[in-house]
Amino acid sequence: MKYSFKNDYSEGCHEKILQVLVRTNGEQTVGYGEDPYCRQAREAIRQELKGPAEIYFLTGGTQTNLLAISALLRPHECAVGTELAHIHTHETGAVEATGHKILTVLPEHGKLTPRRVETLLQGYTDHHMVKPRLLYISNATEVGTVYTKEEIQALRELCDRRDLYLFLDGARLSSALCAEGSCVTLEDLRNLCHVFTIGGTKSGALFGEALVFSEPELARDFAYMVKQKGALLAKGRLLGLQFLTLFQPGDTGEKLLYEIGRQENQRAMALRKGLEELGIPFLEESPSNQQFPILENALLQAMEKDYAFETMGAVDESHTCIRLVCSFMTPASAVEEFLQDLRRKMEALSF
Amino acid sequence: MKYSFKNDYSEGCHEKILQVLVRTNGEQTVGYGEDPYCRQAREAIRQELKGPAEIYFLTGGTQTNLLAISALLRPHECAVGTELAHIHTHETGAVEATGHKILTVLPEHGKLTPRRVETLLQGYTDHHMVKPRLLYISNATEVGTVYTKEEIQALRELCDRRDLYLFLDGARLSSALCAEGSCVTLEDLRNLCHVFTIGGTKSGALFGEALVFSEPELARDFAYMVKQKGALLAKGRLLGLQFLTLFQPGDTGEKLLYEIGRQENQRAMALRKGLEELGIPFLEESPSNQQFPILENALLQAMEKDYAFETMGAVDESHTCIRLVCSFMTPASAVEEFLQDLRRKMEALSF
Amino acid sequence: MKYSFKNDYSEGCHEKILQVLVRTNGEQTVGYGEDPYCRQAREAIRQELKGPAEIYFLTGGTQTNLLAISALLRPHECAVGTELAHIHTHETGAVEATGHKILTVLPEHGKLTPRRVETLLQGYTDHHMVKPRLLYISNATEVGTVYTKEEIQALRELCDRRDLYLFLDGARLSSALCAEGSCVTLEDLRNLCHVFTIGGTKSGALFGEALVFSEPELARDFAYMVKQKGALLAKGRLLGLQFLTLFQPGDTGEKLLYEIGRQENQRAMALRKGLEELGIPFLEESPSNQQFPILENALLQAMEKDYAFETMGAVDESHTCIRLVCSFMTPASAVEEFLQDLRRKMEALSF
Amino acid sequence: MKYSFKNDYSEGCHEKILQVLVRTNGEQTVGYGEDPYCRQAREAIRQELKGPAEIYFLTGGTQTNLLAISALLRPHECAVGTELAHIHTHETGAVEATGHKILTVLPEHGKLTPRRVETLLQGYTDHHMVKPRLLYISNATEVGTVYTKEEIQALRELCDRRDLYLFLDGARLSSALCAEGSCVTLEDLRNLCHVFTIGGTKSGALFGEALVFSEPELARDFAYMVKQKGALLAKGRLLGLQFLTLFQPGDTGEKLLYEIGRQENQRAMALRKGLEELGIPFLEESPSNQQFPILENALLQAMEKDYAFETMGAVDESHTCIRLVCSFMTPASAVEEFLQDLRRKMEALSF
Repeated sequence: MKYSFKNDYSEGCHEKILQVLVRTNGEQTVGYGEDPYCRQAREAIRQELKGPAEIYFLTGGTQTNLLAISALLRPHECAVGTELAHIHTHETGAVEATGHKILTVLPEHGKLTPRRVETLLQGYTDHHMVKPRLLYISNATEVGTVYTKEEIQALRELCDRRDLYLFLDGARLSSALCAEGSCVTLEDLRNLCHVFTIGGTKSGALFGEALVFSEPELARDFAYMVKQKGALLAKGRLLGLQFLTLFQPGDTGEKLLYEIGRQENQRAMALRKGLEELGIPFLEESPSNQQFPILENALLQAMEKDYAFETMGAVDESHTCIRLVCSFMTPASAVEEFLQDLRRKMEALSF
Repeated sequence: MKYSFKNDYSEGCHEKILQVLVRTNGEQTVGYGEDPYCRQAREAIRQELKGPAEIYFLTGGTQTNLLAISALLRPHECAVGTELAHIHTHETGAVEATGHKILTVLPEHGKLTPRRVETLLQGYTDHHMVKPRLLYISNATEVGTVYTKEEIQALRELCDRRDLYLFLDGARLSSALCAEGSCVTLEDLRNLCHVFTIGGTKSGALFGEALVFSEPELARDFAYMVKQKGALLAKGRLLGLQFLTLFQPGDTGEKLLYEIGRQENQRAMALRKGLEELGIPFLEESPSNQQFPILENALLQAMEKDYAFETMGAVDESHTCIRLVCSFMTPASAVEEFLQDLRRKMEALSF
Repeated sequence: MKYSFKNDYSEGCHEKILQVLVRTNGEQTVGYGEDPYCRQAREAIRQELKGPAEIYFLTGGTQTNLLAISALLRPHECAVGTELAHIHTHETGAVEATGHKILTVLPEHGKLTPRRVETLLQGYTDHHMVKPRLLYISNATEVGTVYTKEEIQALRELCDRRDLYLFLDGARLSSALCAEGSCVTLEDLRNLCHVFTIGGTKSGALFGEALVFSEPELARDFAYMVKQKGALLAKGRLLGLQFLTLFQPGDTGEKLLYEIGRQENQRAMALRKGLEELGIPFLEESPSNQQFPILENALLQAMEKDYAFETMGAVDESHTCIRLVCSFMTPASAVEEFLQDLRRKMEALSF
Repeated sequence: MKYSFKNDYSEGCHEKILQVLVRTNGEQTVGYGEDPYCRQAREAIRQELKGPAEIYFLTGGTQTNLLAISALLRPHECAVGTELAHIHTHETGAVEATGHKILTVLPEHGKLTPRRVETLLQGYTDHHMVKPRLLYISNATEVGTVYTKEEIQALRELCDRRDLYLFLDGARLSSALCAEGSCVTLEDLRNLCHVFTIGGTKSGALFGEALVFSEPELARDFAYMVKQKGALLAKGRLLGLQFLTLFQPGDTGEKLLYEIGRQENQRAMALRKGLEELGIPFLEESPSNQQFPILENALLQAMEKDYAFETMGAVDESHTCIRLVCSFMTPASAVEEFLQDLRRKMEALSF
């Protein structure tokens, strides 16, 4: 196999993170995230948020989602997301396992829109039905699209009107924030979302998600729940060290988190441009590090021999949508080689 | 502070593990523990078990315990442990949060004994009460003692008679297996326990517990539950790499896991011997890497200035039990210095 | 108000049931459903089923559904129903509160069809998603339609192929079994469904659902779960007495349960015929005791003054679907008067 | 068998309740407890409470306990009761099944005392342990004793100091309130308990518990949870009718609930006096409708032939504690006959 575009967690971690882990390896610190590195990492993030916030470091995305949602909801309350919402489709019923239903609406370009949520809410009026209480959105979305600030604001206004929480899953937030056309900042998210996550795993960390409660009261006793769900890392400093590094300047002077997001996107844009030039259509127009081209099946099979990627599903009898993901380590050369091979195979199949 | 004996997860990881993580950092592998390193690690453990087994790598101890227990029990079934059982006292109700009660009996030297379990079982006879279905034991126990093979056998016989599962929490298994007087092997555990864990976090890994199902049928669909509880690590190979290293020969030719357990115990035995020579009594006679000496309160306060350790609780008005833990990194010099300082302070307090 | 067609639980109970409750009121029996009346009732039902079965008497429908489903499923398994499934829409997330997701497909005339389930199943292939394990159907359905024996057979064949349980919610089973065109018997249900319920509440009992496990092994330890979910009635004989009466001959010699179902349907058919004659369309063609006519909004408002009924939702800007339900006590005169009033109001509104 | 003292739910219901059910049987009302009878019953109870309160009618005790507790607690919070607490011993882990641990302390005469709770609380200090949040007491207790107003006040003061809820399980409240020496009133309970129940099942109703939230805010959205746990009775008026009758004057002019409690106690006191005269010792001195005499085993066996009662457990090798319960229907003659038979058998066994 020449290269895997299967996801953005195929490799280890960014070299700066690795260096920090090696350098601090022999130090003794207290456990469970109460060490100085975690404190410094929280402080570094708060500076970027430009405001107070409660920040918890967790290991993985599903863990973070189920913890945040189950901490915020009372037993009869439910989450609302799009039909593509990761918590709905790819987390093995993790939210339901904590007792809460997920209601869904059709997405618009992968996004949750106030209009569709409003229509849904009209049907939930009494105690024979669950009570919608939290909107779940992903940024970047499950199909690579990115919310504008105005879109998030509109959702927050709906939340304020209807007493809902706005929760943003930022598993691929670094890519979303650095996407062309995105003007959303971490400061905006603190202002607009009740709770959101900053993904580390898909942005150059070995693992780790930072969970940000914009209103500290919402995090009351959250530490208990982290422990209860088995999410409290003994050597918690590993999370602090990684996020501290992600929030320090990288080679360009910009914070490493953004540097990584920006580079992932550059590779993805190179892929997209190359695919467009070859006339390949896309499921959605994605400005982020996931691209969803639609390939003729024979072409897909030809490419599978040398490259790894996810198959998303049949679009019609002869075409299939695939997912190509660029990671913090994807070299420009891998993109170029992929595009060259694709062109060659298209010619061979005489498209 | 001169040194922390607070626990065995104050430092990073064993240097051999660190080297492997650095060496493989740039490689691409598939995620979620389906990579070659996880496969090799499972194979290495199976060789040590000398028999078939289903093995899952998880991140932390509470996570592992709640997952294994909730996977094995039906809704009305419960776990039975001692009143000291970690799942009962220090996991924030993690097992109950999955819907299952824990029943407890008084420990004998920290251990669960068939006699006390039998007595308990006599009271659980109909459907107005929970149904005991799983025995939970820790080895080493919460007070540092270690089960003999005969003791585990006796519990298994009880389990076979009463249709119970035997679950052994091996958070500190490497220390237990290498403790003086212990003749238990991993092969024995595969034969005697339905399910058990091999702790990595407290044995030189950055994190990681290996969960072993001795009867593969018991692991049916377990992967679903791992994902559902948020315990499936995206870069799963990190767990495989660490356990693979722990199950390869260390400097002495012995598997690294045992080398680490043996060294932790050596330090602990040096501590114990020194304390005994100073006439300090112990809560229990522990052959493993946790020691529970009972200090006069003034002495405790004097030592706290230079050393970190856990305080377990008052024994009487003027004495308190503390916990001293030796990790894979604890140097012999730290033990010596601690003992010297203790002797000096005892003299100063004119004991 | 002249009459309520709001539902089939607006009144107390059938007079034969009332007589039995009065007659036995002073007797002493053991509690929790272990009394002779419950035994006799189970036996009477088993005779009708023509085969062995485990039968539990419970108080209400949501309780019965959540108990049966949570008893059958392991944590990662889920139920599949139509988008109209009562457990999905009108039980406040009761199934999810036990930890299990519900997946839905579009109904065909209110029914679950093998074709749509098969399509759904194709997407559930690995442990990142829940595992479909149980099909939920209602008979009569939520829109009054009734399954044929062939339809249930086809679902069972799918279940056998795909290792699924078939669960039939018979809240309105008496009406369904006695509906014109239905050739399904209780014996058939025992052969075709793994688990099903026989509703008492909507068939002339004060309350009560009989839950039938066609394969006794599926009911293993079910009594524990009944108690655990708060569903074990202290004076359990109340359930036994009611079901015993429902399964004894009524005035016509037929079992009272069928007599009630048949009479409910007769009233409903009279309603339907009358509505059809007035040119009123229906949501679905229902042969059972629930009718779903679609009324012009002005007419609906006129009728609401004298009659109670449920409003199901707007069909278009000027029409709304309502639900009319006939109970075991609905007199023929109420139906006639309703139809006369309707005709009169239609004339007044000059349709 | 001559008579069963097994419990206070061996018979149907009080004749006044039966009459009301018969009289209203044919009426149509709306379902789910929104009918006029439920409203009137709530009003009648509120008058007795002399203050505002939110009141819900539920079917059984375990159901009521699990609902109230799970509605009040967040995921990491737990209940505290005595080791005899019904929720701990005889409800099949119902509270744990909603995710919450129960911590226990030794009882003093069956009661929870502030002193023992305080001692327990000292050990629960951080997020590695559950957070005690609710005290559970039963009145009458599981061994028949009755709380004084001062005892309940002392518990409430502890609750106020430590941010705990006080929950009183009044399954046998009518007996407790009317017990000799008790000066507690429903008004007191509204003032002292955050939540409490008024048991109907064991006080002459067919079934039914009234759950009283003294602070309406605590009941926010409780109706959703009632439905979600399967506890919303379709023909909810059955509960309203029964409680309305219990809160109307009986033959003596006193409210029927008290009349029943008083009569149950009279029978129990007659039993106790007779047993005392025969020199029989008791487990605890109970002024309520449950008596716990300790019988010589041969005598127990002799009595078992003619009388039904619960066996509580061996006291020593030759003595066993039994439970005798008097219901609203227990005739004075049954008590007399029991005592005569007992005397005769004692003589025959030549005590």
